Amino acid sequence: MGNCVNVALDAMGGDNAPSEIIKGAVDAVKDQDNVRVFLTGRKDVIEAELAGYDYPRDRIEIVEASEVIEMGESPVMAIRKKRDSSIVVALNLVKDGKCDAFVSAGSTGAVLAGGQLLVGRIKGVERPPLAPLIPTADGVSLLVDCGANVDARPTHLVQFAKMGSAYMKYAMGINNPRVALLNIGTEEEKGNALVKETYPLLSSSTDINFTGSIEARDIPQGGADVIVCDAFAGNVALKMYEGVGKVLLSKIKGALTANLKTKIGALLIKDTLKSTLKEFDASQYGGAPLLGLKGLVVKTHGSAKAGEVRNSIIQCITFKEQDVNGKIREYLDL
Amino acid sequence: MGNCVNVALDAMGGDNAPSEIIKGAVDAVKDQDNVRVFLTGRKDVIEAELAGYDYPRDRIEIVEASEVIEMGESPVMAIRKKRDSSIVVALNLVKDGKCDAFVSAGSTGAVLAGGQLLVGRIKGVERPPLAPLIPTADGVSLLVDCGANVDARPTHLVQFAKMGSAYMKYAMGINNPRVALLNIGTEEEKGNALVKETYPLLSSSTDINFTGSIEARDIPQGGADVIVCDAFAGNVALKMYEGVGKVLLSKIKGALTANLKTKIGALLIKDTLKSTLKEFDASQYGGAPLLGLKGLVVKTHGSAKAGEVRNSIIQCITFKEQDVNGKIREYLDL
Repeated sequence: MGNCVNVALDAMGGDNAPSEIIKGAVDAVKDQDNVRVFLTGRKDVIEAELAGYDYPRDRIEIVEASEVIEMGESPVMAIRKKRDSSIVVALNLVKDGKCDAFVSAGSTGAVLAGGQLLVGRIKGVERPPLAPLIPTADGVSLLVDCGANVDARPTHLVQFAKMGSAYMKYAMGINNPRVALLNIGTEEEKGNALVKETYPLLSSSTDINFTGSIEARDIPQGGADVIVCDAFAGNVALKMYEGVGKVLLSKIKGALTANLKTKIGALLIKDTLKSTLKEFDASQYGGAPLLGLKGLVVKTHGSAKAGEVRNSIIQCITFKEQDVNGKIREYLDL
Repeated sequence: MGNCVNVALDAMGGDNAPSEIIKGAVDAVKDQDNVRVFLTGRKDVIEAELAGYDYPRDRIEIVEASEVIEMGESPVMAIRKKRDSSIVVALNLVKDGKCDAFVSAGSTGAVLAGGQLLVGRIKGVERPPLAPLIPTADGVSLLVDCGANVDARPTHLVQFAKMGSAYMKYAMGINNPRVALLNIGTEEEKGNALVKETYPLLSSSTDINFTGSIEARDIPQGGADVIVCDAFAGNVALKMYEGVGKVLLSKIKGALTANLKTKIGALLIKDTLKSTLKEFDASQYGGAPLLGLKGLVVKTHGSAKAGEVRNSIIQCITFKEQDVNGKIREYLDL
């Protein structure tokens, strides 16, 4: 138990809270011996949910938090005012060293603001980026930044590249990760002002494997392991990735159930198609880490179900065991 | 013949030039009675290609152009130096009033630069945006800007909204087109500096139907008819849209041909699936217009085949017949 990774989990955040969140916690502690989960939220609600499960009771704890930060609230205000919210209580567990990591499917803004205000940045980190993993044709890529810094500066992007390299190498086991700069063409003179200023800085960074610019078109193919961008461009890329997938798959589903003939065809291809499409299921990798904080903060989709919550908790184990934060410090020369 | 729309077509530009380009021209004039195509490029090459077709000879003309602008060349330099290139010769046909429109699958940069330098902006237009149509779950949307103005200003985006509205209403027949601002959330306070400054300007524009912010995720669903953004964000959105579609479809294709069982299944669903996916084929709408120029300039994909070229030529007919440029002037109060 002494070697357990302690994860604070926001039991009240997300579209499927608390039931799917709590199920994810139960699945995680049953699946992994070395993790303990601290569920923050309304004790009575959490206890009622947990009553339905059989699980190692010494590895799930409830920490009372009477308030919930809603999606529409101003993030910074909510973090400051709702001291007894499930997010703030959980973040304080990380701040106080009782927990190693925090996972939430709640308000992205509140998680980002709270992570910075309460857990705090590693000294020397200018801006902590939100870095989701997205499945590609031949693996998975890290998109840094996707939500934290909409008006980023070139030096921020250089730090993103280094922190992303550390994450992909040590948390994901990718040797010498290829770093690319999100751009609208692959020629060096292309891009907006930010990209043009960032390109030479990345080019001259000897501690990362910078491979040049990447167009968004080549991301789903797996053109790079770490894709560096400001949060506005990253968010557009990420959400378009998700949106196209969703619409295409629903159209294909419609075609498969169009008539008796296609329904029979669908039966024959169902299993193979399912396992193919599973490769593109981002939830298998857990949530998006907010890199560069003193502890690990992971934001899962608002729509996360138990599987994604479980995977996000398991993700925290690797992060701790591989000492990714120590590696981030090394990459940043801190 | 007097009422013909005259289209200058770059016979030498694009991955499949000249054969697919010339086939597209032949298909267009056979399909539509009121269009005449001026093919610019090497006369001997074009003549040899045309020899294989039967078509109304009075509606395809060859205009000799001895040079070709290559993809890697600096656009502005190439336009200035290669006076006898297929792109410059074609653009001069529009400039001189001999043609109404120009279509090219060649270098995007050269087409954009040449369009502005040779054809010229409508007086009062600050920046002409490149505005591709992208298929959605329930129709088609216009993404303005996707390639011309990477560091745009708020007033540019307001003009994009107005020009886009004119295009969707008169060229595409969409009544009261919904205009949305590409953003990373739907709340008004979200966004980068550009978006935050642009939002109130669009809100107070009474001549457009502004519906607020749109996240990239909602674009493929058809969340707006005109999506306004700077060219960097637009290019990322467009290329991610294309990239995800390509990878997903190739994965699905792989699943369908995985084994005998799935191959039989594939036979049963093939026709229905094909017609479903056809709805998502951007080439059915032709190329991307560069809005706000004195004539129409249309950029098709570098990989365009005959079908897309034909549709791009046909697109020019509607543009001229509906006097979209006149409508753009009205929308902009010019």
